[in-house]
Amino acid sequence: MYIEKINSPADVKALNMTELSALASEMRTALIKKLSIHGGHCGPNFGMVEAIIALHYVFDSPTDKIVFDVSHQSYCHKMLTGRKDAFLYEDKYDDVSGYSNPEESEHDHFTIGHTSTSVSLASGLAKARDLNGGKENIIAVIGDGSLSGGEALEGLDFAGEQDTNFIVVVNDNDMSIAENHGGMYKNLRLLRETDGKTECNLFKAMGLDYIFVKDGNDLSQLIEAFGKVKDIDHPVVVHIVTEKGKGYSYAEKDKESWHWHMPFDIETGETPANYFGGEDLGSITAEYLLDKMKKDKSVCAITSATPTVFGFTPDKRAAAGKQFVDVGIAEEHAVALASGIAANGGKPFYGVYSTFIQRTYDQLSQDMCVNSSAVTIAVFAASVYGMNDVTHLGIYDIPMMSNIPNLVYIAPTTKEEYLAVLDWAMDQNEHPVAVRVPAACVSSGKEVTKDFSVLNKYEVTQQGSGTAIIALGSFYDMGVEAAKLIEEKTGEKPTIINPYFITGIDEELLSSLKKDHSKVITIEDGILDGGFGEKIARFYGSSDVKTLCFGLKKEFLDRYDPADVLRENHLTPEQIAEDTAAL
Amino acid sequence: MYIEKINSPADVKALNMTELSALASEMRTALIKKLSIHGGHCGPNFGMVEAIIALHYVFDSPTDKIVFDVSHQSYCHKMLTGRKDAFLYEDKYDDVSGYSNPEESEHDHFTIGHTSTSVSLASGLAKARDLNGGKENIIAVIGDGSLSGGEALEGLDFAGEQDTNFIVVVNDNDMSIAENHGGMYKNLRLLRETDGKTECNLFKAMGLDYIFVKDGNDLSQLIEAFGKVKDIDHPVVVHIVTEKGKGYSYAEKDKESWHWHMPFDIETGETPANYFGGEDLGSITAEYLLDKMKKDKSVCAITSATPTVFGFTPDKRAAAGKQFVDVGIAEEHAVALASGIAANGGKPFYGVYSTFIQRTYDQLSQDMCVNSSAVTIAVFAASVYGMNDVTHLGIYDIPMMSNIPNLVYIAPTTKEEYLAVLDWAMDQNEHPVAVRVPAACVSSGKEVTKDFSVLNKYEVTQQGSGTAIIALGSFYDMGVEAAKLIEEKTGEKPTIINPYFITGIDEELLSSLKKDHSKVITIEDGILDGGFGEKIARFYGSSDVKTLCFGLKKEFLDRYDPADVLRENHLTPEQIAEDTAAL
Repeated sequence: MYIEKINSPADVKALNMTELSALASEMRTALIKKLSIHGGHCGPNFGMVEAIIALHYVFDSPTDKIVFDVSHQSYCHKMLTGRKDAFLYEDKYDDVSGYSNPEESEHDHFTIGHTSTSVSLASGLAKARDLNGGKENIIAVIGDGSLSGGEALEGLDFAGEQDTNFIVVVNDNDMSIAENHGGMYKNLRLLRETDGKTECNLFKAMGLDYIFVKDGNDLSQLIEAFGKVKDIDHPVVVHIVTEKGKGYSYAEKDKESWHWHMPFDIETGETPANYFGGEDLGSITAEYLLDKMKKDKSVCAITSATPTVFGFTPDKRAAAGKQFVDVGIAEEHAVALASGIAANGGKPFYGVYSTFIQRTYDQLSQDMCVNSSAVTIAVFAASVYGMNDVTHLGIYDIPMMSNIPNLVYIAPTTKEEYLAVLDWAMDQNEHPVAVRVPAACVSSGKEVTKDFSVLNKYEVTQQGSGTAIIALGSFYDMGVEAAKLIEEKTGEKPTIINPYFITGIDEELLSSLKKDHSKVITIEDGILDGGFGEKIARFYGSSDVKTLCFGLKKEFLDRYDPADVLRENHLTPEQIAEDTAAL
Repeated sequence: MYIEKINSPADVKALNMTELSALASEMRTALIKKLSIHGGHCGPNFGMVEAIIALHYVFDSPTDKIVFDVSHQSYCHKMLTGRKDAFLYEDKYDDVSGYSNPEESEHDHFTIGHTSTSVSLASGLAKARDLNGGKENIIAVIGDGSLSGGEALEGLDFAGEQDTNFIVVVNDNDMSIAENHGGMYKNLRLLRETDGKTECNLFKAMGLDYIFVKDGNDLSQLIEAFGKVKDIDHPVVVHIVTEKGKGYSYAEKDKESWHWHMPFDIETGETPANYFGGEDLGSITAEYLLDKMKKDKSVCAITSATPTVFGFTPDKRAAAGKQFVDVGIAEEHAVALASGIAANGGKPFYGVYSTFIQRTYDQLSQDMCVNSSAVTIAVFAASVYGMNDVTHLGIYDIPMMSNIPNLVYIAPTTKEEYLAVLDWAMDQNEHPVAVRVPAACVSSGKEVTKDFSVLNKYEVTQQGSGTAIIALGSFYDMGVEAAKLIEEKTGEKPTIINPYFITGIDEELLSSLKKDHSKVITIEDGILDGGFGEKIARFYGSSDVKTLCFGLKKEFLDRYDPADVLRENHLTPEQIAEDTAAL
């Protein structure tokens, strides 16, 4: 095999066209096998095999610098830059991350996992090159789906004014994670249909030069185009048309399901049944909203290109019709749109991952909270049990969001509480409300009668004394477990509190605890800095009550085992009980 | 006068063309007079008088809904929607805010002060209209300068895919706050030069229809164009060319200085000398950077359209040449660009207002901090003494930024400390560093010898006992004053600590205080929730030391007097001393 002998891009350059073709085929086979066992981003990588080969054939990485947007095309790049073993040998599969990573290789310039950042980051590389008198090529590789993100558009606009070497490879597979949404995709279609010849051209309108490659899975067309732009003295877009999922029939046919996929059987394309759990709160959310939509035509569910995070598979999107909006990768717009809908008598609901709501702080603050718009936001995977790549952590949303005035951020602990919060949030017109969706779908079977309109009212679920445990959201059960251990240890039953509200404190209840509690502990599923527990600690700072906050250390974790991280942060019932005893 | 009789848009509709012209002239005269006494946004409003008249002549506000980007054109809108008195009579000047405001009028749909939000917000109004079966026109009015912001581009892309009434008026005066930057401005120029006829058209490439108005200060051209798009059944851009500063010669000539202006003499255009203070840290920053740039060609100063916030007036921008970059209104890109520059051996410096750094949380986290890029960011007007409009508050940056891992956020207390932090930050290659620029330019005259590379090391500036006062940044002096009062009251000299570091705690020092301090108080110039003091409160929660955190309540303040707000939040030396005594 050729791939076994590729230790750096120099080995790619030594191959002839027939050999390069064979290499492409080998790479695709290796990718399919690894992903069938390991899971990961299938579609984007399958479609970019030839383009990555051509890039490394034409350019001289790492002197020439290639930045991969979202890293979704980086598997092939890794295979050609000294990391092939992690794709060829099962025992080495975990030697590389799923994202570009400077710690792995000098061919990677940034750790990247969020979309729409490549053009801006690469333009920084180009600016530093120019200031230092360098001559290398700077190349950003970005998918069509990522183009709709504000940062990508800001980056293209900036690049369009520069007067030095800068190459943007637009990998157009006519798909985002799901289908594309946005007016610009009509222009991309027109460009594809006219072989790039139409005068009305988004990239030219942004000030960049433009080259079209009709078959972005054809090595010779790619090599010719990249050869043309190598060492160019101005910014240029190379628009290549590829097929998402190329070379694996199931991925070619159902592009959305195969964007990212769990381990699968190569022959059948099916995933072993045991990979799917029972109920999940995403699907429950979609069902809930579809029901609401039937009763109220102004209910509008919004996604920023990740519709399935709250259960909106293609059939459910079709069922929702105009009441479901996919804005594409455009989180800022999603929040502002929602605020506008609320301001004109609609009922907006935005479902989003914790890691991606980071992309819209100012819109949460200015467009939504300053205007007290009654938007409901469901924040998913906001937990140490969420995604565990450094770029996709879901443990910062509390400090980011909960300190914005006017926002009501609530952390239910069960499925029933979650649905009760949604009921209240969608029916009121006073507050922007965010819901921290529980990490697991736990059902208590109990009816929830709590009145959420009385803000910042906590609930005592077990009356005790000595120690009070305020356990937030997904970690409520950990508080219950710790309480049992503390009672066993001390003979005194602790008070247990479900606070629900992240964004405010229940001063009355907290004050009343002073009477017969000397210790108050808090437990939260997120970082401690700027989080929930610190507000409690501040409240009791001037009293005799001692406080201890349990949560995660402020740090960028990467590919961790949640159990390890919890233990390191003293987040097990046993450790909590021990630390509380020592308080 | 006509303007005296305009109580609602209906009164505008009753005028003939000659009368409308006279009205325009009266409005401009009133604006010039008010702004000469009151200060405010001059250029944008002077240029939009005719367009606002035409909008209200053609459309039926508030049924038809007009959303003004940044609100920079809203003065004229307010004059025609029942709020003329606030522009005609000096004693009523403060009856309206400088921004659109639903509390003032049903003709205002959002409180808006940040740029690039109008298209997204308006598209929400349109979506709710469609869901509810409404028929009104929805109009977003956005300046060319605001178009470069990611949220605006996301909004245009979204709008371009819709199939119902939606009108975007692009007010093109060929200026941002300073000159425009970005490739799209070449396209706008081409559109102006071809009377909108060039085929390559940014707005069409985004999927919107397009109409060009050559003279956007000509009432009849405007009325004709708006009449054409009224009740249109698809999204359309009306591109109007206006003159920024129109009708006031000084503002026409020096557009940048007159974007926003302090009170001035109408005859001479000059501002009374007493409006300018002595040294300011903006100018000092520019001088500092120009000197650095001479010594190191890789030093690169970056602004997102507000170059003068750190002293880069046109002459200094010219002096910096390629080492100064204005990315336009594009804060996300600014941070990613800076990270890219650092990753390729450059020395990036980003100067930005506290209120606008809110627009780039995810880039701070993902593009910069995950990558530990050695970027230096100076955060200006981060204080209760910063801008006092609800949309421009500078009191949330600590909770927003300081809980992001890897960031080193430092709050110097004097000019000398500020420059020392810059020296360290610009010379190191390990950390993303943000500097909270002191609210006032206080000089201690003292040389700073502190080694900032030892992170999270606080400094005891007065050794005492009983009470320790940790006073951060701009409020350090308040801590010193409070210490004097506490000493007078109790006879015991408090310890005073300058913490410098916002992003971490000095555990060693804090632990050592336990020996002979029973009270530790913190003082910070920002909101308490998620801020600096809470970290200290958490640290001492498990000890016998009592803590009290002084800072601002989490709330959206508007047009406040800082002295009042400080008093209400117990942020005077006297109140601090009293509260501490009661602890």
